[in-house]
Amino acid sequence: MKSKSVAIVGASGYSGEELVRLLLSHPHAELAAVTSSQYAGQTVARVFPRFASHPRARELHFTEPKPELLAKQAEVVFLALPHGVAAEFARPLLQLGCHIIDLSADFRVRNPAVYQELYAHEHPAPELLAQAVYGLPEVYRAEIQQASLVASPGCYPTSILLPLLPLLKARLVSPNGIIADSLSGVSGAGRKAELDYLFVECNESVRAYGLPKHRHLSEIEQELSLAAGAPVVIQFTPHLVPVNRGILTTLYLTPAPAGREGFEEQIAACYQRAYGQEPFVRVLEGKALPDTKNVIGTNVIEIAWRLDPRTGRVVVLSAEDNLVKGASGQAVQSLNLMCGWPEEAGLR
Amino acid sequence: MKSKSVAIVGASGYSGEELVRLLLSHPHAELAAVTSSQYAGQTVARVFPRFASHPRARELHFTEPKPELLAKQAEVVFLALPHGVAAEFARPLLQLGCHIIDLSADFRVRNPAVYQELYAHEHPAPELLAQAVYGLPEVYRAEIQQASLVASPGCYPTSILLPLLPLLKARLVSPNGIIADSLSGVSGAGRKAELDYLFVECNESVRAYGLPKHRHLSEIEQELSLAAGAPVVIQFTPHLVPVNRGILTTLYLTPAPAGREGFEEQIAACYQRAYGQEPFVRVLEGKALPDTKNVIGTNVIEIAWRLDPRTGRVVVLSAEDNLVKGASGQAVQSLNLMCGWPEEAGLR
Amino acid sequence: MKSKSVAIVGASGYSGEELVRLLLSHPHAELAAVTSSQYAGQTVARVFPRFASHPRARELHFTEPKPELLAKQAEVVFLALPHGVAAEFARPLLQLGCHIIDLSADFRVRNPAVYQELYAHEHPAPELLAQAVYGLPEVYRAEIQQASLVASPGCYPTSILLPLLPLLKARLVSPNGIIADSLSGVSGAGRKAELDYLFVECNESVRAYGLPKHRHLSEIEQELSLAAGAPVVIQFTPHLVPVNRGILTTLYLTPAPAGREGFEEQIAACYQRAYGQEPFVRVLEGKALPDTKNVIGTNVIEIAWRLDPRTGRVVVLSAEDNLVKGASGQAVQSLNLMCGWPEEAGLR
Amino acid sequence: MKSKSVAIVGASGYSGEELVRLLLSHPHAELAAVTSSQYAGQTVARVFPRFASHPRARELHFTEPKPELLAKQAEVVFLALPHGVAAEFARPLLQLGCHIIDLSADFRVRNPAVYQELYAHEHPAPELLAQAVYGLPEVYRAEIQQASLVASPGCYPTSILLPLLPLLKARLVSPNGIIADSLSGVSGAGRKAELDYLFVECNESVRAYGLPKHRHLSEIEQELSLAAGAPVVIQFTPHLVPVNRGILTTLYLTPAPAGREGFEEQIAACYQRAYGQEPFVRVLEGKALPDTKNVIGTNVIEIAWRLDPRTGRVVVLSAEDNLVKGASGQAVQSLNLMCGWPEEAGLR
Repeated sequence: MKSKSVAIVGASGYSGEELVRLLLSHPHAELAAVTSSQYAGQTVARVFPRFASHPRARELHFTEPKPELLAKQAEVVFLALPHGVAAEFARPLLQLGCHIIDLSADFRVRNPAVYQELYAHEHPAPELLAQAVYGLPEVYRAEIQQASLVASPGCYPTSILLPLLPLLKARLVSPNGIIADSLSGVSGAGRKAELDYLFVECNESVRAYGLPKHRHLSEIEQELSLAAGAPVVIQFTPHLVPVNRGILTTLYLTPAPAGREGFEEQIAACYQRAYGQEPFVRVLEGKALPDTKNVIGTNVIEIAWRLDPRTGRVVVLSAEDNLVKGASGQAVQSLNLMCGWPEEAGLR
Repeated sequence: MKSKSVAIVGASGYSGEELVRLLLSHPHAELAAVTSSQYAGQTVARVFPRFASHPRARELHFTEPKPELLAKQAEVVFLALPHGVAAEFARPLLQLGCHIIDLSADFRVRNPAVYQELYAHEHPAPELLAQAVYGLPEVYRAEIQQASLVASPGCYPTSILLPLLPLLKARLVSPNGIIADSLSGVSGAGRKAELDYLFVECNESVRAYGLPKHRHLSEIEQELSLAAGAPVVIQFTPHLVPVNRGILTTLYLTPAPAGREGFEEQIAACYQRAYGQEPFVRVLEGKALPDTKNVIGTNVIEIAWRLDPRTGRVVVLSAEDNLVKGASGQAVQSLNLMCGWPEEAGLR
Repeated sequence: MKSKSVAIVGASGYSGEELVRLLLSHPHAELAAVTSSQYAGQTVARVFPRFASHPRARELHFTEPKPELLAKQAEVVFLALPHGVAAEFARPLLQLGCHIIDLSADFRVRNPAVYQELYAHEHPAPELLAQAVYGLPEVYRAEIQQASLVASPGCYPTSILLPLLPLLKARLVSPNGIIADSLSGVSGAGRKAELDYLFVECNESVRAYGLPKHRHLSEIEQELSLAAGAPVVIQFTPHLVPVNRGILTTLYLTPAPAGREGFEEQIAACYQRAYGQEPFVRVLEGKALPDTKNVIGTNVIEIAWRLDPRTGRVVVLSAEDNLVKGASGQAVQSLNLMCGWPEEAGLR
Repeated sequence: MKSKSVAIVGASGYSGEELVRLLLSHPHAELAAVTSSQYAGQTVARVFPRFASHPRARELHFTEPKPELLAKQAEVVFLALPHGVAAEFARPLLQLGCHIIDLSADFRVRNPAVYQELYAHEHPAPELLAQAVYGLPEVYRAEIQQASLVASPGCYPTSILLPLLPLLKARLVSPNGIIADSLSGVSGAGRKAELDYLFVECNESVRAYGLPKHRHLSEIEQELSLAAGAPVVIQFTPHLVPVNRGILTTLYLTPAPAGREGFEEQIAACYQRAYGQEPFVRVLEGKALPDTKNVIGTNVIEIAWRLDPRTGRVVVLSAEDNLVKGASGQAVQSLNLMCGWPEEAGLR
C-alpha cells in the first residue's frame, strides 16, 4: 500500500501529542514534520519522553510552522491549532496542494455568521467553508474520501452526535427537548497553564461550566438539524471531572411518537443498521453500561440505551476517549479514508 | 446548655465514621457508645487513626450492639446500619425511651408497600412509620424538634430535594418532566469490599449505574409529590466519579407556566425566601457555579440556577458533601433540633 | 482571654488560604486584613467560595499590601509571600511594632551567605536574622513565646526534623549517612499556573525532582547540625505524588553506636520523652504506620519507626499535612505561643 | 514466522488481563485459551469490556483450568496464579510438554528453604527449581531462549535489579548499605476485594507497608548477590501511592571505592555497555528524571542517576509500568525469546 508523508502543525498540545503517538506507529503514514513555536529545535523524544524509544521520535525535530516548507514535506497536514489560527494556515496549505485535516472548530460550522457570533471576529477564510467536510466518518464517509479539507469534530460533539443521529434520522425520537449532560476529563481543556486546571483545583472537584451556552453547541445543532430535517435546539451541560481522559455523555430523549409499539426493538434495529458494521462504535448489550475506562486509549465509542417505563423517556449513554475518538483518533480515521487505506490502520 | 449522651450503632462505615468525627468535637453531645460487631473491643483511636489525637477516641471502645445496654448509655441513638437492620434496632430502642436518628432508608418512605417492593421483604416495623419524621431540617424543622424517630435523608435525595422543593411549592416549575442527573463520589457506595469500588476500578473511570430505577427514587418522589400537591415522577441518573466525597446534581426543569414575565426575579425571590436565613444552604450569585470542592467537609449545600433563553428551561445545580449534608452532618443538624441546641452546634 | 487582631499578607496562595481557614474560626484571633494584589477589592467569600458561609468572609475584602495600613489594623502579621519579597515586608512592619510570622524561607537560615548562594541575590534584611526564631514549637517553644519575628518552617523540613531531632540530640543515631526520602502532594508546589502542575501532568504520575540539591536542605541541615553538635549533611530526595495534600517522609538512619543493647527501648523512651506530652505529635504504636490520610486537615504529625534486624538500620516514617503542620497550622501554633493563648487554640 | 498457540491460566487478575491485552494483538502468538474458575463460561469480551472490539475476545470463552486440556490447546502456558498454586499447575503442564512462563514467585527463589520460610509451607515442586530460569531478559537472555520454565520477575524486583545489576557487576558501587525506596501504584496489590485497596482508602493517601521485610526481598537479594559475587542484604521500603499503574524506585548507593576519579564517566559507560542496545531500557540524559507517566502502557523502564557531590552517594531512579515491564510485558518478552521471535514482537 502506498504510504504518504504527513505533518502536524501545532503538535505541542494534548491533541497534537496524541496525533504524534498514533502517527509514529501508523503502518502507512510517515510523520515528516511536527511544528511548534514553543519547542522549535527540540526533538520529539525530548519534548514527549514517552515516545523516546521510537527511533523516529529521536531524529524528528520540531520546527517553526511555515506553509511553504510544510507543503514540500507532507501531502497531508493536520492542524492542531487554536480556533482562528487554524484557518490562517489552511488557506496557503490548500493552495500549495496539501490535504488538510483540521482539529479546530474553524471549518465545522458552515455559516460564517455563526462563527463570527461565537468567536467575536470574522471568519478568517469563509471561502473555504463550502469545500470543508465534517469529519465524522460514520456519517460522512464518502465525502471524506473525496475531501481536501476535513473539519474533524470536537470531543463533545462526537459523544453526542454518534448516539443521537441514527435515532433522529429514523424519526424514532423527537427533535424537541433533547438534553445532553456530559462529563469530561481535564485534558479536554487543553495543555494550558491556567489556575483552573491545576491538579489541586481539579482533583476532588466536580463542577459544571460554560452554562448555559457552550461554543460547541453550534456544530452539534447544525448536524442534528441536518439529521432531523428541521432546526434542533438542545440543552447541553458540560461538567469537569477529575480524570485525565474520557467523556461520558447522558442523553435524555423522547420517543416519537410516544407510546408506539415495539419501540425497543426499533431502537435496537436502528443502531444495528447504523453501527453493526462500524469498527469503532460498540453498542452494548445486556446490562452493560458505558465506562470511560473501557475506551481509554482506543478509537472506540461505547453506546448503551434504556427505555424508562416510568417516564417514557429513552436515556442514551456514550463513552469515548476525548483525545482519540473525540479528536486525534477520529482525525486519523479520516486520514485513512482520504488516503484509501484500511479505515482501522494505525487505530488498533 | 444541657448536654446529652449519644451513641452510634454501626459506626464502622463511612457515615458512621463521619458521625464519630462530628460528635467527638460537638460542644453539647457526649459520645457515650459506638458499636460494631467487626471492631468490638477495639478503641475508636485504633480503628480510625485519624481521630487518635482526641482523648475520647483513645478511651472509647467499640462494643457489640445491644439495645438494653445502649439505652442505659445514651439518650439519642444514631443508626448507621444497612437497610432492614436499622428498623430492627429502632423498635426496642424506642421502647426503652431512646430518641432515634436513623441514617438508613427504613423509615423514609411512608408507605410500607413501597418498601416491600423496593427491598423484596416486608417492612420490619411498619407500626413506627407514622411517627417517623423525614429529617430534612430546612423543610421539617418543627416536626424534627418534636420527633422521637427521625429518618435522615440520603445523599442523592438531599441534593435533589433542597434545590427543587421551593420551586415546586411556589409552582414556579412544572412537576412534569423533571430530570435529575447526579455525580457521586465513591464513598457513597459505602465501605464495602467489592471489586467495583477498588481504587483501580474507579480511578480514571466515569460511569452511570442503576439505570433506569434507583432505590432512592421513592423517597425523592414522595417528598416532591407532597410539595407539588400531585404525584411527581422524575428521571434520575446516578453516576460514579473518582472523588472520595461529594455529589453534584444537575436538574432540568420547565418553568410553569412557560414564558411568564419576571420569571428570573421570581426564582431569585423564591430561593431568598426559602433559604435566605438558612445557615447550611448557599444560593450562589453572579457567575459562580457549585463545585464539590467548596463544600467538602462542611454541612453546606451550594445551589445555583440558570434560565436558558434558547430552550426555555431552568437548569439548577447543587453540590454537597455526601457524607456531611448528605448523611451525618444533616443527622447532627437534626440532633441539634431535637435537643434544643443551636442548629449549627458542632457543624461549623 | 484577650483577643488580638491579625493580618495575612499574600493570602491568595494555598498556605495563605489555609491561614484564612484557620484564623476565621480561631477563638482568640480576629482576622482584620488580608492582602493580595491580584484580588484587591474582592471579598474573601468571593475568592474562596468554600468560606462563603462564614460571616466574616463575606465582609472582609482583600486589599493591596501596605505596611502602614497593616500596622494599624493588626498586631500580628503573617507573611505568606514568595521568598525575597517577605523580607521586604518584614522590616517596615517590625519597625511599626507588629509581630511577624513569616512562612517564607527568608529568615530560616541564619547565615546570609547561604541565603545568597541559594537565591542568587543578597539577603534583603540581614540585620533581622539575629532576632528571628525558627518556628518549630516542639523545639523552640520558649523562644517563640518571646519572639517578635518567627521564621515558620517549611513542609519538608518539618517532616524531617520532628522525627529526627530527638534521636540526634540523644545521640541514638549517627549524624552521618542520613537519608530522607519524601513524597509530597501537589499543593506543595504552590498555586502557580505552570504546566508541570496541571492535573493531566500530575495525575497518574510519580516522579522525583530537584535532585541532587533542594533549596530546603539548608534549613534542614542547620537544625540537624545544632541538634547533633556537629555539621550534618544529608541525602534528600523529594518526589511529587498525585494527592492534593500530605507529605510522607522515610528516613534511613544508623544506630550509634551500632549494636548497642536495649536500643529499641531507648528509641521508644526517647520519643516518649520528646513527644509524650506534645498535642500535635503522634508516635504510633503496634503495627500502625503513618498514612497521610490520617492527618489531612489536622496539625498532627504521625511518626513510626522500625529497627531492621537484617540491616541494622532504623527506618523512621512521618506523615503530615503539608499545608497545616507543614505550613499554616504550625504558624498558628506559633501565634498561640506568642500571644499566650492555649497552644491548641484554633487547631482542634 | 511460525506462530504458536498460547494459554493464560488465571487470567482474571490485573496481570492476567494485561497478558490478554498483549497477546490479543501479538503478531505471532495465538491466544488459544484463558482460564478462570470465577469467569468460566463467559467470553473475554464480556469479562473485559475494553477488549470487546477485538474479534477473538468475542469468541474466546474462559474455561476451568485443566492441565490435560490446556496441553492440547497451547504450546506455551502463562501462569498468572497466586503463589503456591502456580507450582501445582507447572508440574503437570511441563510433563505434558508445555513450556511455562510463571508470573508468580514460585520458581524465582532457587533455595526451597527460603520459599518455605517466606510462605510457611513446603515448596510444591522443588524438583523443578533447578530448571527454572529467572526471566529477566536483559540478564538471562540466552538461558531464557533455551528454557522450558521461566520464572518471570515481580514488579519491585525488576525496578530494582535493572538499574542496579550493571553497577554491581562492574564493581562501581558497594554491595553494602544499598537502600531501595519504591512507590507503587495500586494495581500492584492485585484485583482483590479488600478494604485496604478501596478507592476511598487509597485516594488522597500515601503510606508505606510491609516493613521491615517484604516477600520480594529474597529474589532481589538472590540476584544482587549473584551479580556482586557475595551476599547482598538491602534495605527495601515499598510505599503505596494513588495511581493505577507504575513503580518509581529510588536507589541510594555508595561508589566503590569512594572518591575514584572519572566515576561519572564510568557509570555512564557502564550503563551504555549494559543497555545501549536494549530496546526496553531507556537511560535518560541531561536533566531528565524518570516519571511513571512516560512508561505507562509500555514495556520500557526509564533509568537516571545522579552523583551527589555533597554526600558522595549515587542516587539512581527507575520508572516502569508494574503490569508491563514489571509483569506481563516482560513475560511476553520471554515468550518472544523462547519462540525465536523478534524480542519486541507485540510490545511496540
